[in-house]
Amino acid sequence: MVADSMGGLLELEIVAATADAVRARVPVTDGLCQPLGLVHGGVYASIADQLATAHTPKAAHAISNQTSFLRPITRGTIHASARARHRGRTTWVWEVDITDDERRLCALVRVTVAVRP
Amino acid sequence: MVADSMGGLLELEIVAATADAVRARVPVTDGLCQPLGLVHGGVYASIADQLATAHTPKAAHAISNQTSFLRPITRGTIHASARARHRGRTTWVWEVDITDDERRLCALVRVTVAVRP
Amino acid sequence: MVADSMGGLLELEIVAATADAVRARVPVTDGLCQPLGLVHGGVYASIADQLATAHTPKAAHAISNQTSFLRPITRGTIHASARARHRGRTTWVWEVDITDDERRLCALVRVTVAVRP
Amino acid sequence: MVADSMGGLLELEIVAATADAVRARVPVTDGLCQPLGLVHGGVYASIADQLATAHTPKAAHAISNQTSFLRPITRGTIHASARARHRGRTTWVWEVDITDDERRLCALVRVTVAVRP
Repeated sequence: MVADSMGGLLELEIVAATADAVRARVPVTDGLCQPLGLVHGGVYASIADQLATAHTPKAAHAISNQTSFLRPITRGTIHASARARHRGRTTWVWEVDITDDERRLCALVRVTVAVRP
Repeated sequence: MVADSMGGLLELEIVAATADAVRARVPVTDGLCQPLGLVHGGVYASIADQLATAHTPKAAHAISNQTSFLRPITRGTIHASARARHRGRTTWVWEVDITDDERRLCALVRVTVAVRP
Repeated sequence: MVADSMGGLLELEIVAATADAVRARVPVTDGLCQPLGLVHGGVYASIADQLATAHTPKAAHAISNQTSFLRPITRGTIHASARARHRGRTTWVWEVDITDDERRLCALVRVTVAVRP
Repeated sequence: MVADSMGGLLELEIVAATADAVRARVPVTDGLCQPLGLVHGGVYASIADQLATAHTPKAAHAISNQTSFLRPITRGTIHASARARHRGRTTWVWEVDITDDERRLCALVRVTVAVRP
């Protein structure tokens, strides 16, 4: 499955998905990088938002996103592994690990999603 | 001044800038929106990251971004108003208000930036 | 008005309150400090939580708290100034500035509160 | 090992510790609860801050704390499980899961700690 977003810039490929976990990858392209060649911080936030909202059942929208930037990615593939840590009546909380091709942790994202009861 | 980013998708126009505040605007284009027509959450994070890192002196990179999504934007212009709330020796903290054309508050972003001493 | 909390450790005095803003102060006591003599980070989070939940109408409880620690406080008075930045149907978002007796910014807190419709 | 804090209110017992993980527990006492009988949100933030800063080598202090409140605790024991997710040159990032006696997830905390090189 491939989801298009940001005018096709963010090509998100779902690798595996269960009820409360989903893994995806995104190829690094020039369009995702700053002039210095690092992937934009907003890209990690976007990937996490999309995984979290698409995999929360019922009409869901993100109410907050907290991203910690640990290590830059400059090429190859962005790997995202998302887990629903909390599945409440009105909110779900997802934690998403972003890693590079060497499996090094590059960003941590926590997304809080509002669900409609 | 116009800064290009995300393959030109994010056309950031600086409206005013002082030592510890900067205002910018970004026109809403299809490329910034989800299929449902709302501007992507990652866009607000990206705008804030770019304002914060570009206006922090010395080599700076974001170490965290906390975005709260309050109200969707679907068209017109995204307005960003950034203030440096803390200018420390090793970190700066910026708070960025995102508003729409009716000046309604749509997102709050706090960006922590590491500076090189 | 004085609100008791944490076994009386956190003596919160409300200085001024309107519909969407409230200011309070808390005297620094030994019980609020770490062994090194700095006020505990959790104290700022607690002050902000209490102001936000007590001043959000309807049954409210905090769903998240994001505190940035900027400068330690070691004595005197902790001053807290809270503003409701977003008053939505299901969530309110408060931003709280923590300052010391010299009016230096010591912590920034964003509290998201769930309200019952 | 028992660490005293907040005037003895927060009695933190370390259950196990390795180089990048630590588990602790805190008995729920009246002093930690709000008038309604729920443990204060600031208590989870304090526990996480203390674990993170005490187990990061070199002089360390927290620069941010992001707590998501998922489920209240009213009695018994607060269990905290902390992992160092990032051990960088200038910052460490800890993630702390707070659970109750039934092992239900009650809060998620991310603490960013500055280390002195």
